Amino acid sequence: MNISHIEHLGIAVKSLEQAIPYYEEILGLKCYSVEEVADQKVKTAFFKVGQTKIELLEPTSPESTIAKFIEKRGEGVHHVAFAVDSVQKSLDEVAAKGVQLIDKAPRGGAEGLNIAFLHPKSTIGVLTEFCENPQQ
Amino acid sequence: MNISHIEHLGIAVKSLEQAIPYYEEILGLKCYSVEEVADQKVKTAFFKVGQTKIELLEPTSPESTIAKFIEKRGEGVHHVAFAVDSVQKSLDEVAAKGVQLIDKAPRGGAEGLNIAFLHPKSTIGVLTEFCENPQQ
Repeated sequence: MNISHIEHLGIAVKSLEQAIPYYEEILGLKCYSVEEVADQKVKTAFFKVGQTKIELLEPTSPESTIAKFIEKRGEGVHHVAFAVDSVQKSLDEVAAKGVQLIDKAPRGGAEGLNIAFLHPKSTIGVLTEFCENPQQ
Repeated sequence: MNISHIEHLGIAVKSLEQAIPYYEEILGLKCYSVEEVADQKVKTAFFKVGQTKIELLEPTSPESTIAKFIEKRGEGVHHVAFAVDSVQKSLDEVAAKGVQLIDKAPRGGAEGLNIAFLHPKSTIGVLTEFCENPQQ
């Protein structure tokens, strides 16, 4: 597996309306996209920081995994996404080494990326995502 | 303030002995340094992923803030560190906008960087660090 960089950090927030001004006015970052990902029941806002994006995640339903995360642990870093050449190959490789997967095959995520999650039980507490840009 | 990139992610782990092989053998990253930061009561291990470092933090005492974090929330992402031109100027700028600070002035951190932490109450749940390399 070849991880080139951290593609994004997923950060759970209660309200984009409250969080976007913090990232823009205090940290000086620029929100370049707001997107709803209906099947994950979240609204997302994206910022670029060098090679890495910050993806703010606001739950749109109490059933959303992000709503449950916030209820249990409060707002904060929800997941770390690594850019890889091939999500499927990377999944196969880590599964062969005993890592538990949430997704056995890539699925569509925000920004048109192919994504898959590993299980945090296998990743020492960090919910880990692999991302691949099918346009590259 | 000018944030150029994410300098590092701090990840709290119970045991470097257990965590380093995961990052090396499963994710294919290379640990290039293990360092004890006595005044923070932690042992650290560093990996490079593109522009960003992963800093694993193992508590060396139950009094360590990392030990308390793990006890309360489990292993996982502990803080996000942004690279800035000047830590002092950045602190002054965010404090003037009402952000609560943990450190009012930069102090020495791992790898010879000048660092300072903002308070997570002001940063929507993400413990946030500013870093500056005094050699640059």
